[in-house]
Amino acid sequence: MIDQKQLLKTIETALAEDICTGDITTQTTVPENMMISGSFIAKAAGVICGMDMSKAVFAYVDAKVVFNSFFNDGDTVSKGDVIARIEGRAASVLTGERLALNFLQRLSGIATKTRETVEKVSAFPVKILDTRKTTPGLRIYEKYAVRTGGGFNHRFTLSDGILIKDNHIKAAGGIQSAVQAARRFAPHTLKIEVEVETLGQVDEALAAGADIIMLDNMDLNTMAHAVARIGKRALTEASGNMDQKDLEMVAATGVDFISIGALTNAVIPLDISLKFD
Amino acid sequence: MIDQKQLLKTIETALAEDICTGDITTQTTVPENMMISGSFIAKAAGVICGMDMSKAVFAYVDAKVVFNSFFNDGDTVSKGDVIARIEGRAASVLTGERLALNFLQRLSGIATKTRETVEKVSAFPVKILDTRKTTPGLRIYEKYAVRTGGGFNHRFTLSDGILIKDNHIKAAGGIQSAVQAARRFAPHTLKIEVEVETLGQVDEALAAGADIIMLDNMDLNTMAHAVARIGKRALTEASGNMDQKDLEMVAATGVDFISIGALTNAVIPLDISLKFD
Amino acid sequence: MIDQKQLLKTIETALAEDICTGDITTQTTVPENMMISGSFIAKAAGVICGMDMSKAVFAYVDAKVVFNSFFNDGDTVSKGDVIARIEGRAASVLTGERLALNFLQRLSGIATKTRETVEKVSAFPVKILDTRKTTPGLRIYEKYAVRTGGGFNHRFTLSDGILIKDNHIKAAGGIQSAVQAARRFAPHTLKIEVEVETLGQVDEALAAGADIIMLDNMDLNTMAHAVARIGKRALTEASGNMDQKDLEMVAATGVDFISIGALTNAVIPLDISLKFD
Amino acid sequence: MIDQKQLLKTIETALAEDICTGDITTQTTVPENMMISGSFIAKAAGVICGMDMSKAVFAYVDAKVVFNSFFNDGDTVSKGDVIARIEGRAASVLTGERLALNFLQRLSGIATKTRETVEKVSAFPVKILDTRKTTPGLRIYEKYAVRTGGGFNHRFTLSDGILIKDNHIKAAGGIQSAVQAARRFAPHTLKIEVEVETLGQVDEALAAGADIIMLDNMDLNTMAHAVARIGKRALTEASGNMDQKDLEMVAATGVDFISIGALTNAVIPLDISLKFD
Amino acid sequence: MIDQKQLLKTIETALAEDICTGDITTQTTVPENMMISGSFIAKAAGVICGMDMSKAVFAYVDAKVVFNSFFNDGDTVSKGDVIARIEGRAASVLTGERLALNFLQRLSGIATKTRETVEKVSAFPVKILDTRKTTPGLRIYEKYAVRTGGGFNHRFTLSDGILIKDNHIKAAGGIQSAVQAARRFAPHTLKIEVEVETLGQVDEALAAGADIIMLDNMDLNTMAHAVARIGKRALTEASGNMDQKDLEMVAATGVDFISIGALTNAVIPLDISLKFD
Amino acid sequence: MIDQKQLLKTIETALAEDICTGDITTQTTVPENMMISGSFIAKAAGVICGMDMSKAVFAYVDAKVVFNSFFNDGDTVSKGDVIARIEGRAASVLTGERLALNFLQRLSGIATKTRETVEKVSAFPVKILDTRKTTPGLRIYEKYAVRTGGGFNHRFTLSDGILIKDNHIKAAGGIQSAVQAARRFAPHTLKIEVEVETLGQVDEALAAGADIIMLDNMDLNTMAHAVARIGKRALTEASGNMDQKDLEMVAATGVDFISIGALTNAVIPLDISLKFD
Repeated sequence: MIDQKQLLKTIETALAEDICTGDITTQTTVPENMMISGSFIAKAAGVICGMDMSKAVFAYVDAKVVFNSFFNDGDTVSKGDVIARIEGRAASVLTGERLALNFLQRLSGIATKTRETVEKVSAFPVKILDTRKTTPGLRIYEKYAVRTGGGFNHRFTLSDGILIKDNHIKAAGGIQSAVQAARRFAPHTLKIEVEVETLGQVDEALAAGADIIMLDNMDLNTMAHAVARIGKRALTEASGNMDQKDLEMVAATGVDFISIGALTNAVIPLDISLKFD
Repeated sequence: MIDQKQLLKTIETALAEDICTGDITTQTTVPENMMISGSFIAKAAGVICGMDMSKAVFAYVDAKVVFNSFFNDGDTVSKGDVIARIEGRAASVLTGERLALNFLQRLSGIATKTRETVEKVSAFPVKILDTRKTTPGLRIYEKYAVRTGGGFNHRFTLSDGILIKDNHIKAAGGIQSAVQAARRFAPHTLKIEVEVETLGQVDEALAAGADIIMLDNMDLNTMAHAVARIGKRALTEASGNMDQKDLEMVAATGVDFISIGALTNAVIPLDISLKFD
Repeated sequence: MIDQKQLLKTIETALAEDICTGDITTQTTVPENMMISGSFIAKAAGVICGMDMSKAVFAYVDAKVVFNSFFNDGDTVSKGDVIARIEGRAASVLTGERLALNFLQRLSGIATKTRETVEKVSAFPVKILDTRKTTPGLRIYEKYAVRTGGGFNHRFTLSDGILIKDNHIKAAGGIQSAVQAARRFAPHTLKIEVEVETLGQVDEALAAGADIIMLDNMDLNTMAHAVARIGKRALTEASGNMDQKDLEMVAATGVDFISIGALTNAVIPLDISLKFD
Repeated sequence: MIDQKQLLKTIETALAEDICTGDITTQTTVPENMMISGSFIAKAAGVICGMDMSKAVFAYVDAKVVFNSFFNDGDTVSKGDVIARIEGRAASVLTGERLALNFLQRLSGIATKTRETVEKVSAFPVKILDTRKTTPGLRIYEKYAVRTGGGFNHRFTLSDGILIKDNHIKAAGGIQSAVQAARRFAPHTLKIEVEVETLGQVDEALAAGADIIMLDNMDLNTMAHAVARIGKRALTEASGNMDQKDLEMVAATGVDFISIGALTNAVIPLDISLKFD
Repeated sequence: MIDQKQLLKTIETALAEDICTGDITTQTTVPENMMISGSFIAKAAGVICGMDMSKAVFAYVDAKVVFNSFFNDGDTVSKGDVIARIEGRAASVLTGERLALNFLQRLSGIATKTRETVEKVSAFPVKILDTRKTTPGLRIYEKYAVRTGGGFNHRFTLSDGILIKDNHIKAAGGIQSAVQAARRFAPHTLKIEVEVETLGQVDEALAAGADIIMLDNMDLNTMAHAVARIGKRALTEASGNMDQKDLEMVAATGVDFISIGALTNAVIPLDISLKFD
Repeated sequence: MIDQKQLLKTIETALAEDICTGDITTQTTVPENMMISGSFIAKAAGVICGMDMSKAVFAYVDAKVVFNSFFNDGDTVSKGDVIARIEGRAASVLTGERLALNFLQRLSGIATKTRETVEKVSAFPVKILDTRKTTPGLRIYEKYAVRTGGGFNHRFTLSDGILIKDNHIKAAGGIQSAVQAARRFAPHTLKIEVEVETLGQVDEALAAGADIIMLDNMDLNTMAHAVARIGKRALTEASGNMDQKDLEMVAATGVDFISIGALTNAVIPLDISLKFD
């Protein structure tokens, strides 16, 4: 699902940042053709994500490195599980180690957090969404990790979704005129989402024909009223520091989506280490 | 301290990732020459970092946007503080908003965490160091944030420091031969650091003439013995899940440095928002 | 509306292609500081497009070149009109001339053709759309020219619109399952468009809840029936060699959109020349 | 004849423009490993060009896609001919389809137009030339299509030919001094071509020792006199809206070359479609 | 004469190579806003070249650095001459110093060597040429230095000149057929040069109608005969380890050009240093 | 030891510089599938360097070219030795020839000069070092050639070594404060080198705790005194126009290192040619 060409560029950039003119320690202390083998071990339970990317890091450094994974992205691992084995030239493995682990730990951290979040609301027909609060340069990977954890993706860029916020509304002179302008000039392939904070705005958005209404920073009671008033005439999305809310209660209001920036911008990496034999 | 040319490239890449073919919402709903103004507000206390970078984001998008900051990187802010004001074309400000906030929140998060860590050990003559566990593509910024918070930087790349680890030692056939090889072939401008886990290895590293000895994953008692045995003949660095240790106790062993990967790879962003007038 | 940073890159690439190691004729025959002035003249009537781009070409080559335009993009010009004046170092003007004219002629050609098309159906509430049949590397400019001529843009990339065609339907096992899959996995900000060729497929698309139905290669009678059957429950788009059809008749069927690849892939440039004083 | 490395870059850029963050329709509706096959069919007669490029597009997307062509570049096809067969992963084929067709249709359009032009003057020993009026970014491909159609290439860039035009002559203070300057300073590997509009200028160019004389916008009678007066002392090239002239009459004047901008800048694509089985 | 845009890229690449993550010495020891001034001093006599490039290096690093040159490219300097003064932020000046000197020394070395060579043959109407034996990445600058020293440029790339060598002749089946093929297929703007080693080949080249005949590795006597036999029917170029020949004798044979690879590939830099006040 | 990915980029850039839009001579005179074979011959004795790079050049152009080398980098060759054989498509071999030879000749020139220098001081335990006076864009290759010749590398970039020179000392207010500042703020993995010119400065550097002391432009007597006074408390490096000094006498002073800019910036290429069968 991750474009391989784009991944190669990400790896190239990241390795250049890490290596500069060369891995001087390895070059001076490790015999050029010495072989090495080792295990990637989960030091904590979680959802694995980034297996193919880690494999690609080593393949980029040296096509002869053998990387065998025992879990697929999305699988649950327990503390102590050997998740992959690696074998190849020591210099190559040591050169790729840090970047491969950086990817694996960060993406698994996101997938694990997403899975926990999804499970909290599993009793409800609601989808957990990410946001654009991702790490600059890594968005497609972090959004992949959200999908791996069972979440869904909100728009990828400012080009593939219309989200009319507070300031757009002010600038356009009201919800009605903002929605009209978007409908008139934007590609007809895009739905129109409007961010509202009050029930009055909900009514305006409905009247304007919004396809999606984002209920931003509403208390639970107002949110429930908003969902009821909308009555399936538009999709509904709960938003605003959702990681600090009682998600079951939010889901219980009947919203279609809950979007959570913290899925990607407050990530604790899953502890995974590479132990050589 | 951050290279401006490199920063422009980072901004260019990040904006391209976010914008793709255009900010369709702003383009269709906001009049092209409408002006806007607003305040960046700290929603929590912490150490600010990334002010110049945020300013550069807006300058990149539109040279006429005016960004006035009321705090410098390294300043402490309280919840509710207005940390900067912005004024300019609405379309320009809205286009740069997300990236500027992403930078500001992440780097301030790192600076805040570093400051807290540094203060924990302020009674001791020890330096807090970062590691290479940084976000791919953002290392120079994250290491700048560590400095901003009062920490110090370990090596930036594999080229500007020699760190002989477990696997290098195995590959070279022992600490003695690894250090000799590095001394023989590596540039003489680099010190030689050796990672050890036991007191026996400490003795070997000393005998080999290591300049720095990294005490990795040692319990406090062993670490204290190691420091005593070394007796200033080499610099000492404590390492290994240091964010989960009692740092005062670690500092009390007399080590010169404590390196902590979590400063940069387990970051909770400082909550900062942009509120338009 | 055109991103200036992206435009600079397009200009850089195009000039590199044209100049290689240098404009050897100009370098050897034109005194380095000689000045020149001249007029851009329309050799045929049409709609102007690309004024800012042409100006940017010269500004890129030499910031001191003065380019004054007497018409804006979207204005109609007559044969013989002086549309702009230029003045500056001869070497700079001669270096940028070819690329500036290439842009101006091609984009004005697209805008002119679009305007003619739009006017043909001006009695109907239908929008004329472009397609993805654009010149590799120039899509955003060509789509801008379509807007300049009074047309509207279909999706810019494969990421900002869902268009389920024949092959997606086969692959998914039917219209019903294709639409369901898209609704389940694609970002909720995107509408779902389905391409159909028969009235039977129209019914299936409606049953599946398609937001937009593309009526592909239908004869006028079938198209009219399709529009009637849909009855505003979905948007309708006529498609398939539309440049060879009687557009008024197509519009009369009541479709919401007509998309025409030939707007951008069969372009006759508007004849514009640069005449030096 | 087309540099493969350069072609890969063109493909990379063009696909990035088309795909952005991913082909969302295909990703969500087509099973990841589903296979597909189909035929490229000529919908009109013409000269095929771009076969290898189209093949390279699919190979770039997915090395396992099999593309078998039944015609080579330069072959004539009839309406209805199956010109190639394709087979591979549906997702890969659908991703490359648009770009491959864009190349194939445009280049075949150029080759077809060139072939028709060449045939018009086949009774004369004249060569048909292209110009620098090509699509920014696609020059080497469009000039290849001209060769494929039986035409010849004028200079590729401003570096590989000297063409002294009106403005160079003015700047240098006359044809004599312009030619002298070029002969003195330009690499001796380049011929010197001078653009003239009158018989008086023809004499000046001859006196100055021009290697090639471009007869620009001359009526047929003047052109014939010019060719006679030159009498093989220099090569002759007819130029100026040549696509609107009676080419046989132009050729009959005895010129060595006729250069035609419209070969590349007023292209009607050859209609070719991909029909899946 | 040097394209400024291209120069900026060369500087960017070269500084990145030199600086990596930062000039750690300057950053840690020099106060951020300290000013500095100094003189560029010629430590040997020679011809200056690269003044504008050196100035551009500092301008790239810091637009506020003031660089005043007292000599222009092509001027002769004596040992001890102050050739330029510089003033600005110490950190900026120190960062650009090495690259500016590298450029200045190398290009001045080439210009000096070329000037000496040109003067050796000043009694003869012969031009001294460079070759393609230049430093990868620096060709346009090195060829500029040759011009600065009074030499002339042979072709810049394989695209802007036809030079039929030994192997092309073998491949084509003889001089006659090689020249014919080039005349038939190559752009008519290029002359045809043929490399020959014997008088027999001279005759063949003349018969084939070569525009230029390269006399490669001929002894002086043969060369003189060749020039006489050609008798101005083609241009003549002496080639082959010319830096080791008696150039006056070569010039005396009457050849039009002498090309010398050593002008650019065996360069002793002119000693220039930057002395701070 | 040379990073293959980086080498490919260097080759790509260099070939683009040399080829522009195509090798027009080869394309027009050499049959597309003609094969060729030949020998690389040393025209002078020396140390070979750049074998793998040359091979990579041809592999980049055409994967099917076979390049067999009979010597490894570092081997000594005699005049007349066949150092490699090549076989493949004539067009491919001719396209890569110039760049492959440029690399091979330049790097072998550096290796040869380094070997000669190293041998001059072979009776002493001193290491010969290069400097940062390398060709912009080629540093890693030129430093590799120095190693190949038996020399050692000084720092690669301004990031991997601290070298406090005259101006840093002035700026910091003395040697003592400069060294203190570097020790406080620079990564602890770097040694601190100080450049001195007098014995007084030697004492200051020692007092400040410098790890390395560079003895710059000292006469032999002063240098000997300096080495004695330092007495192994710091490493010592002789510097300053060392290529013009009696190196044995310099070595006899007991310095640990001698650094010589001329190893890389005043290179006479080793004469190597490609002779086709």
